[in-house]
Amino acid sequence: MKQTVGGIARGVGGKVWGDESTEVTGLASIQSASPGDLVFVEEARHLGSALGSKAAAVIAGTFAETETTSKPLVIAAHPRLAFARAAVLLHRPSERAPEIHPSAIILPSASIAVSAVIDPWTFVGANAVIGEHTWIGAGCVIGTGVVIGQESKIYPRVTIYPGTRIGDRVVVHAGAVLGSDGFGYVRDPSSGRHEKFPQVGRLDIEDDVEIGANTTIDRGALEITRIGRGTKIDNLVHIGHNCNLGENVIVAAQAGFSGSIVIEDNVVIGGQVGIGEHAHIKQGVLLGGQAGVLPNKVLRGKGEPFWGTPAKPLRDYLKSLGALAKLGRKQ
Amino acid sequence: MKQTVGGIARGVGGKVWGDESTEVTGLASIQSASPGDLVFVEEARHLGSALGSKAAAVIAGTFAETETTSKPLVIAAHPRLAFARAAVLLHRPSERAPEIHPSAIILPSASIAVSAVIDPWTFVGANAVIGEHTWIGAGCVIGTGVVIGQESKIYPRVTIYPGTRIGDRVVVHAGAVLGSDGFGYVRDPSSGRHEKFPQVGRLDIEDDVEIGANTTIDRGALEITRIGRGTKIDNLVHIGHNCNLGENVIVAAQAGFSGSIVIEDNVVIGGQVGIGEHAHIKQGVLLGGQAGVLPNKVLRGKGEPFWGTPAKPLRDYLKSLGALAKLGRKQ
Amino acid sequence: MKQTVGGIARGVGGKVWGDESTEVTGLASIQSASPGDLVFVEEARHLGSALGSKAAAVIAGTFAETETTSKPLVIAAHPRLAFARAAVLLHRPSERAPEIHPSAIILPSASIAVSAVIDPWTFVGANAVIGEHTWIGAGCVIGTGVVIGQESKIYPRVTIYPGTRIGDRVVVHAGAVLGSDGFGYVRDPSSGRHEKFPQVGRLDIEDDVEIGANTTIDRGALEITRIGRGTKIDNLVHIGHNCNLGENVIVAAQAGFSGSIVIEDNVVIGGQVGIGEHAHIKQGVLLGGQAGVLPNKVLRGKGEPFWGTPAKPLRDYLKSLGALAKLGRKQ
Repeated sequence: MKQTVGGIARGVGGKVWGDESTEVTGLASIQSASPGDLVFVEEARHLGSALGSKAAAVIAGTFAETETTSKPLVIAAHPRLAFARAAVLLHRPSERAPEIHPSAIILPSASIAVSAVIDPWTFVGANAVIGEHTWIGAGCVIGTGVVIGQESKIYPRVTIYPGTRIGDRVVVHAGAVLGSDGFGYVRDPSSGRHEKFPQVGRLDIEDDVEIGANTTIDRGALEITRIGRGTKIDNLVHIGHNCNLGENVIVAAQAGFSGSIVIEDNVVIGGQVGIGEHAHIKQGVLLGGQAGVLPNKVLRGKGEPFWGTPAKPLRDYLKSLGALAKLGRKQ
Repeated sequence: MKQTVGGIARGVGGKVWGDESTEVTGLASIQSASPGDLVFVEEARHLGSALGSKAAAVIAGTFAETETTSKPLVIAAHPRLAFARAAVLLHRPSERAPEIHPSAIILPSASIAVSAVIDPWTFVGANAVIGEHTWIGAGCVIGTGVVIGQESKIYPRVTIYPGTRIGDRVVVHAGAVLGSDGFGYVRDPSSGRHEKFPQVGRLDIEDDVEIGANTTIDRGALEITRIGRGTKIDNLVHIGHNCNLGENVIVAAQAGFSGSIVIEDNVVIGGQVGIGEHAHIKQGVLLGGQAGVLPNKVLRGKGEPFWGTPAKPLRDYLKSLGALAKLGRKQ
Repeated sequence: MKQTVGGIARGVGGKVWGDESTEVTGLASIQSASPGDLVFVEEARHLGSALGSKAAAVIAGTFAETETTSKPLVIAAHPRLAFARAAVLLHRPSERAPEIHPSAIILPSASIAVSAVIDPWTFVGANAVIGEHTWIGAGCVIGTGVVIGQESKIYPRVTIYPGTRIGDRVVVHAGAVLGSDGFGYVRDPSSGRHEKFPQVGRLDIEDDVEIGANTTIDRGALEITRIGRGTKIDNLVHIGHNCNLGENVIVAAQAGFSGSIVIEDNVVIGGQVGIGEHAHIKQGVLLGGQAGVLPNKVLRGKGEPFWGTPAKPLRDYLKSLGALAKLGRKQ
């Protein structure tokens, strides 16, 4: 999709420096830019290479206002954010015409909005509800009573267990499994065998959540597993039963949450972090990659990152590392 | 499904205190109980809130025998276990009528029991055998020569590689991959290229095993990968070729086993644990979350938990942590 | 498939000791060998048990040249490598006749080579290209513009996002997701919400790569994620956007790479290793299981293994462990 520099500036709330009728047709990094591309620069020291690149136009911070250049600029307070929004203008997918592919199986009691798209070999169970402009990719299984809101995108081969509720503008990548049985057993002391604890709760995913490829989220045992509004979850993450994730949480790839964990709003969880059951991560905490949190632990912080297992504030972690290295050298 | 308190007591081997004709229709935690729900309480100090809840009836331990209350009680030696068994009585799924969906492809030499259910877009390969009352969900691929026993449940989108054998009452959650090629190569020293070591063994999964969503288990290279009877495996677990897991083992989410590992009966493996090739974990060992076991290591214990990498007994682990923290403070 | 000992010796570049007309029909370990099987032995001390086994023939190193035995031997410089190559001779799958299953959906602008096999319920998008002798298993989704070379094997239920390029002789195991959106967001400081950074780059997978079950590899944000020639990746691995993996790299199960990482040729990555963004792992480095590499770190080594988090040379790691254990005992 083609846009003028002026159109982009209006769309992202920026100001134009130079010719606002210049057209841009794609996005690129400074290194890979071709004619027609839009690039962005966040620091004054990279402005020169952006202007010297083949890009048609540059989004830059206020530091570029004094620049004299023939390449059109869009000046924005947050160039990276403006670039992300310009991408939406340039890459808006042409909306597909509503369709239920003839190979899809929709049980009669399911309700599919007229503008929805259901791709081949997808099953939609009894009483399920699919909202307006929502896309369900090929080979998905949408269980009994699942509710999916509007403008959501479910990529191919996603399995959604019965009863799961999914909000508006949610994106679920290929291979994810949502609402599966939690991992709960009771050991019979006489036989030594594990009998299944009931896993009859539900999974609620709120608006604007994105879920990565092959991620698994279990439904509650007796209650609800919740993924709060605007939370973003990467690939191959595991979230156990009864977890309660707040809003705008970031969870990087391969992190794992055992059961009944509370993650408050705006927490950032690094890759491969592991959190024990009933732990409580307070608002704004940042957990570095591979950190481990013990069961029942309450973690508080003021934007300070935590590292290691058991996770401690970065400063303490670095002190221990330093002491250990010194000790090792003495041996 | 409705049950009377008397029926539940008989089903779980408990005694009724109060009106045994009271009906229960669901399961809940004490906090979320609605009228009609059954709840359970394991400790005397929580009995009051259970009795004060909206629940129709309470399963409690022998500590409740002296209680006077108008709410019916089921007294059981192990309330959580009794609750799990009551759940089976209340949530017994109504059995589906036998069916092979017309869109499924069953090769002529495959054998499907008359009471089995095969859902849409499932492929069953040559000489495969599916047992009585077994359910194969939508979009599964069952390879050549796979044998699945009775009353097993294979959730949607599971792939089972050729030759895999699966017992009775096995549950496999969505997206799991069973019997895939192990990860074994031989480096050609002259070219530096890796050539594939043959991965032509088999995977055997015994009765009463449960396998989580998107978990992967490789078949043996030349021999057999075995998952013993009653073992329960969580989501996103990886089990490499030639591993031999005993009976009633518990494996939490995202744990990983490289090749040729022996896990004896009743071992408990925490989330994100990693175990190196040829390690041997003796009966009854408990490995805490994120623990690591080096290749060839033999781990023995008497119910004592092991933590850390390399895994050591909890007491030693805590001593090291304490010493390290003290050292860090001194710097 | 049957082979004579002489045929195998010629195929693997070895010499026959004994009767070269002896036939072998299968592969086994020494412990599990049945009549007709071929086994191999790498060390002189195991030669006796190989010769005493039920195997029909033995591949052995030059140490066996002085042996007198009635069992035919194939003498090879690298017995394990010779055995791997013998396996190819014995297990060469009979090639399937070209077929596009009638239930598959191939968009008209896609190009499928005449010798390719497309299994049931597979979707091939617009302008996609599938090469000669390539097999696409059941239930795969091949996105718009995907290019797959010759003699590649895509196991069932693989999802390949639009634009991904895959070379010749590539093997992708079941459930893998290739070319999915990277995990990149920009936080709007005024609302606290995360907006998606454009993920419009590509994923290139070169010749002779093997990718494990349920592994996920994201495409580049603006540029390219690359998996170099001959690289082998195990199950449940995550590779983030813009990563550049060289040739003949080995990546064990559940390892995770965040974004923009460079891995040079011949690196070996152990299971559950985690690598932070923009890290650079130099040629020939070996990272032990569960090791962690911090963002932006450059790791150099001469075949020396690195362990722990943050990863350090094995010798330093062991010193620290030893010092820590001693300290713990003193407390």
